[in-house]
Amino acid sequence: MARTDIARRVYNHAWKLDPIVRSLLDTDFYKLLMLQMIWGMHPEVETTFSLINRATSVRLADEIDEGELREQLDHARTLRFSKKEMIWLGGNTFYGRKQIFQPEFLAWLENFRLPDYELVRRDGQYELTFSGPWVYTTLWEIPALAIINELRSRAAMKRFGPFALDVLYARAKAKTWDKTERLKKLPELRISDFGTRRRHSFLWQRWCVEALKEGIGEAFTGTSNVLLAMDNDLEALGTNAHELPMVYAALTDTDEDLVQSPYRVLQDWQRYYGGNLLIVLPDAFGTASFLHHAPDWVADWTGFRPDSAPPIEGGERILAWWRERGRDPTQKLLIFSDGLEAETIEETYRHFEGKVRMSFGWGTNLTNDFEDCAPTPVDGLKAISLVCKVTEANGRPAVKLSDNPAKATGDAGEIDRYLRVFGGEERAEHAVKV
Amino acid sequence: MARTDIARRVYNHAWKLDPIVRSLLDTDFYKLLMLQMIWGMHPEVETTFSLINRATSVRLADEIDEGELREQLDHARTLRFSKKEMIWLGGNTFYGRKQIFQPEFLAWLENFRLPDYELVRRDGQYELTFSGPWVYTTLWEIPALAIINELRSRAAMKRFGPFALDVLYARAKAKTWDKTERLKKLPELRISDFGTRRRHSFLWQRWCVEALKEGIGEAFTGTSNVLLAMDNDLEALGTNAHELPMVYAALTDTDEDLVQSPYRVLQDWQRYYGGNLLIVLPDAFGTASFLHHAPDWVADWTGFRPDSAPPIEGGERILAWWRERGRDPTQKLLIFSDGLEAETIEETYRHFEGKVRMSFGWGTNLTNDFEDCAPTPVDGLKAISLVCKVTEANGRPAVKLSDNPAKATGDAGEIDRYLRVFGGEERAEHAVKV
Repeated sequence: MARTDIARRVYNHAWKLDPIVRSLLDTDFYKLLMLQMIWGMHPEVETTFSLINRATSVRLADEIDEGELREQLDHARTLRFSKKEMIWLGGNTFYGRKQIFQPEFLAWLENFRLPDYELVRRDGQYELTFSGPWVYTTLWEIPALAIINELRSRAAMKRFGPFALDVLYARAKAKTWDKTERLKKLPELRISDFGTRRRHSFLWQRWCVEALKEGIGEAFTGTSNVLLAMDNDLEALGTNAHELPMVYAALTDTDEDLVQSPYRVLQDWQRYYGGNLLIVLPDAFGTASFLHHAPDWVADWTGFRPDSAPPIEGGERILAWWRERGRDPTQKLLIFSDGLEAETIEETYRHFEGKVRMSFGWGTNLTNDFEDCAPTPVDGLKAISLVCKVTEANGRPAVKLSDNPAKATGDAGEIDRYLRVFGGEERAEHAVKV
Repeated sequence: MARTDIARRVYNHAWKLDPIVRSLLDTDFYKLLMLQMIWGMHPEVETTFSLINRATSVRLADEIDEGELREQLDHARTLRFSKKEMIWLGGNTFYGRKQIFQPEFLAWLENFRLPDYELVRRDGQYELTFSGPWVYTTLWEIPALAIINELRSRAAMKRFGPFALDVLYARAKAKTWDKTERLKKLPELRISDFGTRRRHSFLWQRWCVEALKEGIGEAFTGTSNVLLAMDNDLEALGTNAHELPMVYAALTDTDEDLVQSPYRVLQDWQRYYGGNLLIVLPDAFGTASFLHHAPDWVADWTGFRPDSAPPIEGGERILAWWRERGRDPTQKLLIFSDGLEAETIEETYRHFEGKVRMSFGWGTNLTNDFEDCAPTPVDGLKAISLVCKVTEANGRPAVKLSDNPAKATGDAGEIDRYLRVFGGEERAEHAVKV
């Protein structure tokens, strides 16, 4: 006879807090790589990171309870890297290299905790900001986004009974599995999970990662989520992000230094990392300008991650540049990670097959695709374009131009100045889904 | 690998309402027996039932959230007898008799729903009253008590994590099992569950009933809980309660009629029921007075349920009365149901063995004994003496004297009048634990 476990049931129904982020490793690997460099070279820089909801029609403050949001953020602030996690960070091989993290950095990380936040409701939105030393504020980006996205899913699912939820997840599982079946047909595919920040929920991301591991085997190269990498013996993947050129740029005093700032980032980066970690993210202030002003040694780097132009167009521009600079694209690597869906992955793969090495970082469409899964349609389960960007460095405004004006962030006057300095050629507006 | 059932987990952690009372059969059987008689003979009587917390130091309104209480009461009001339940009530044999409920009564019951309630907070207590036709208000007693008691347990358990809860229930289970081991040693014991109203929770009562069924076998004669009787193929047990003489008494106009009112109840009762249902509850206005004024035919009834005097003393008084009236106590039945614990059951059993037939109705100490079970002591898990009594009938105050002045209820002036009419001899104060 099936017996009710009374203790378990009482516990489940008197739930106090169901923490969304339960480990500081539940973040993207590149945050740790960047953090080591920030810690080593810019320990004094002060920054502010701000939540930006590009989907302005979604009134987050109406969907998500402020008390629950504060509880989750407060809980994240209680976290420390555990002993097991520290040992793993120190002992694991990342990108083929042992001890990628310096002992001094790990010793400092042991005492890391997330700094305080400021939260204000305004016009149906949350103004959520993290101010303080860059070495602390930078690690808020991923947990803050994961918390808001999961609270939004939870709120949307409150209307469903157990069978509706069962159907919801059954459909989402079937859908994810169908995608893996499609992708399996691409013989040389290399794909990884980049979906932490906009995941539906932690448990769902875990399911997706484990499903990909079983479903596409060798083609699945790992996950950007450090915790899931550790727990599933997968590679932790990721390189660097826009916050580096954004902060470097914000700290310059002259237009000349501003133009040079993206290359300064790369120079500093290669003091710390090599090999497959030498991936250029070219679009912070427009890829055209970046390629135009790039010193020749940039073409020696392993690859590029075009992150805002359409993948085929953006990739071809980089291939052309390599050829101009006398490099052989078939020896180079392109990492695609912007708004990928199974269709885009297939098209991009087929287009570049044999022309360049490729890798795909699959994000939101992997870990938060519940379209047509709910028994009754519910807007709150549609992923939205929510980001947490650096907006100030040492009191100066930080700006991102991007190849897609819809993804630009920062003060309008400052954006105009950057456009004057870097030029706006080849930038083109595309709808930003997620 | 143990996989998380994500849908189930989301549901459990976004729980909307965990209803305490989920069936109108989740009540004591005697309420249905009394209801049939009230429906047949007193369809016009209006009554008020009121919650009375004898443990005044326990501030219920501070322990239990008003919103949750209203949600539970409102949910109980949505309940109807289901088809399966109606078929079972009509088709089952109760106390050896088929069709104990008349078809006309069952036809009326099919549309039964609990009437509205009034809830006011005052001085840390809840004033909870149910007013309306007696045929409706009477059925609130048990669900109202069960709801308040379980909400109190839930509130008390909110502080515990899953392991503390596991230990809490493990200890309570071990304790209950120890009691069954003790009681098993009494060869002719007949014992049943009377613990619905003050149970810790529905699931816990169900566990206790199933454990007794397995643990003491034939000695376990059934349960007063109609739903648990139906679900476990057990006898549904119970006869009648103080509300009958209390209402009958309240409706009299003269002292003479007042004295006769308890016997009028019995006369009406035997129009409906016979055999083992002819059990006298003698203490509503004092057992001494009841026995003194009782017509001789009362001694022909099957047995007595002494409910407020200490069991040995109270039982001996009835045995003496039977002998006075020339009846043989060994042919008679005593049902003990007041504040029983394993020790009292043993003592009472040993005392009356061979002198009279006995049966025990085990209540609060069976279904709500968590003493020393919690990892850290918590007052909210101690059962309290909470009752829901009729306080008015057709606008007149209803009174209970009891053999124990601590269990008296009603308007003080009216209690004095009743004491004058019935006399107060042999009443003695005893601590009321539950």
